[in-house]
Amino acid sequence: MLGTELIDHEIDNPARNDAVLVEVTRGDRVESVHRGHAVICDADGEVTWSLGDPQAIIYPRSSCKMIQALPLIESGAAKAAGLGPRELALACASHQGAAIHSGPISEWLTRQGFADEDYRCGAETPRDKPTREALIRAHGAPRQIHNNCSGKHAGFLTLNRHLRGGPDYELPDHPVQQAVRAAFEEVTGEPSPFYGIDGCSAPNFATSMTGLARAMARFAAARPDGDARERAMVRLREAMVAHPELVAGEGRACTELMRAMDGVAIKTGAEGVFVAILPAQRLGVAVKITDGTTRASECAVAALLVRLGVLDPAHPATVRRMRPMLRNWRGTEVGAIRPAPALLG
Amino acid sequence: MLGTELIDHEIDNPARNDAVLVEVTRGDRVESVHRGHAVICDADGEVTWSLGDPQAIIYPRSSCKMIQALPLIESGAAKAAGLGPRELALACASHQGAAIHSGPISEWLTRQGFADEDYRCGAETPRDKPTREALIRAHGAPRQIHNNCSGKHAGFLTLNRHLRGGPDYELPDHPVQQAVRAAFEEVTGEPSPFYGIDGCSAPNFATSMTGLARAMARFAAARPDGDARERAMVRLREAMVAHPELVAGEGRACTELMRAMDGVAIKTGAEGVFVAILPAQRLGVAVKITDGTTRASECAVAALLVRLGVLDPAHPATVRRMRPMLRNWRGTEVGAIRPAPALLG
Repeated sequence: MLGTELIDHEIDNPARNDAVLVEVTRGDRVESVHRGHAVICDADGEVTWSLGDPQAIIYPRSSCKMIQALPLIESGAAKAAGLGPRELALACASHQGAAIHSGPISEWLTRQGFADEDYRCGAETPRDKPTREALIRAHGAPRQIHNNCSGKHAGFLTLNRHLRGGPDYELPDHPVQQAVRAAFEEVTGEPSPFYGIDGCSAPNFATSMTGLARAMARFAAARPDGDARERAMVRLREAMVAHPELVAGEGRACTELMRAMDGVAIKTGAEGVFVAILPAQRLGVAVKITDGTTRASECAVAALLVRLGVLDPAHPATVRRMRPMLRNWRGTEVGAIRPAPALLG
Repeated sequence: MLGTELIDHEIDNPARNDAVLVEVTRGDRVESVHRGHAVICDADGEVTWSLGDPQAIIYPRSSCKMIQALPLIESGAAKAAGLGPRELALACASHQGAAIHSGPISEWLTRQGFADEDYRCGAETPRDKPTREALIRAHGAPRQIHNNCSGKHAGFLTLNRHLRGGPDYELPDHPVQQAVRAAFEEVTGEPSPFYGIDGCSAPNFATSMTGLARAMARFAAARPDGDARERAMVRLREAMVAHPELVAGEGRACTELMRAMDGVAIKTGAEGVFVAILPAQRLGVAVKITDGTTRASECAVAALLVRLGVLDPAHPATVRRMRPMLRNWRGTEVGAIRPAPALLG
């Protein structure tokens, strides 16, 4: 395992010191609870608020796609390939394989002379309902471009062409992933203690909750007239904010909540991770639900964005995540998902 | 709320005193954890082993369908309607709406003079993949018979005809649900402190973990030559064991694990509940994952069934639940779901 010797944290139990963040009710009783860690960092990389353990080590999963996209810009590969905000938003996306996602990514690939077979992310059934149902009706098979990470991998392919690396760009010791690792450790401000292989076959570098929140705060505080790193960060966060529909898709939390806010970029990750970049406040947010559940990470990050004053608690997109009025198959309201009191402050 | 005054437990936090039951790993590190409660009761209703809090109050959800089916038999309604083991297995089922499920239930309804509109369970997209995809290709809409609870509701309709109740058989104060409540409190050995409305619109009566395990132990210890209650319990558990494919469906944990065992009946419930009835050992098992996750309840109950000597740890159905070798979109092994050491004993 790469770098397991670097840090000697007691990391075998991410549940250590976690806190109740979200409650699921039925009738007027709590039926299930979700625990986790939540951290807010400022532009100096200092923790300004936390719940749970800010030192907990986690896999950020897809929440760190904007970090993974930094070498694409900083290497000059994005400029050489003529990538604009739409492609950069897609490089940061966990999209659901709708035509608005696969169309531009397909054009991007074709322009670069790549084909679906060059991907290393694997084929995934599109999560977009109309696209998925059309595929079923046509007796079609999903392709790698439908994979929710295909924009990130288009970025890896583009960076790889620039670096003249071999075709196995997903391997941890490949120049593409080594560039990602270097950027990751720089922006988190910590050596990554270990990595795991992500759903899309790329390595996913672990970091502390504080490291992840600190990285998001750096994205938040980055200046358009700063150094190359800062300028790359500004381009990525602005691409996400300009194209929320490309970062996830219709009905998804990232898309709906970004549309409901002004200039705030947010990103989900598998196994209950969520991050937020707040440029006006120069703050970064990281959430990890210990049991890995998305319904809870969405609720928790929405609650924190409300608490930080950037999200209207009455906005329908907020209400859907913070108190969705769980309904059964007949539409009867049976319960709710709500932030735990400690999260509301 | 019905009966909230009956018990003065401190029940607002089901996470209280829970224990780590399942770990999800990526690489060689734990990425997520699932906590919960697990209880084993013997034929005398005594707790013989537990992890977490045996006094925790939970909604059993669909894990108690065999209890909800007791009045159907004990009232004489099942006999009057000529129901056999297949219908009784379907009455206890959370099925996935395949033809093997909706076919016999539809015949049962038609024989009784009922139609889809008489249901109160709501329409649900069938979980069975071929059935779901055929429905999409035909541009069809799911009906109430596709609801995973439609067998239970066919039982409610049949009982209701026998009791000559009004059409709203799903309401908590209706004779059908009052009969269910009486049976529930008798077999759990406790007054139910409150109820919630389930996904299928029927009331779901709460009980302690011990009450649920005790009820399953009573099913396990019931004798074919016992009293009417015992004989009804024997018929239901034997119907489940005889028709595991009707209780859930192909690929599902209930179906695959029952096929892998000899005479043991098991049943899943939403929000991380699982129960088991072990007739040869005269034991009942109840599991609740505090965060409500099915991947964890399946893993935990499989581990307990192995521990109790009724499930082969090397059986493919066991391996799929206890250490599924999580694979990513390209088929690469990236981690595992495994029981926590305390569960393995």
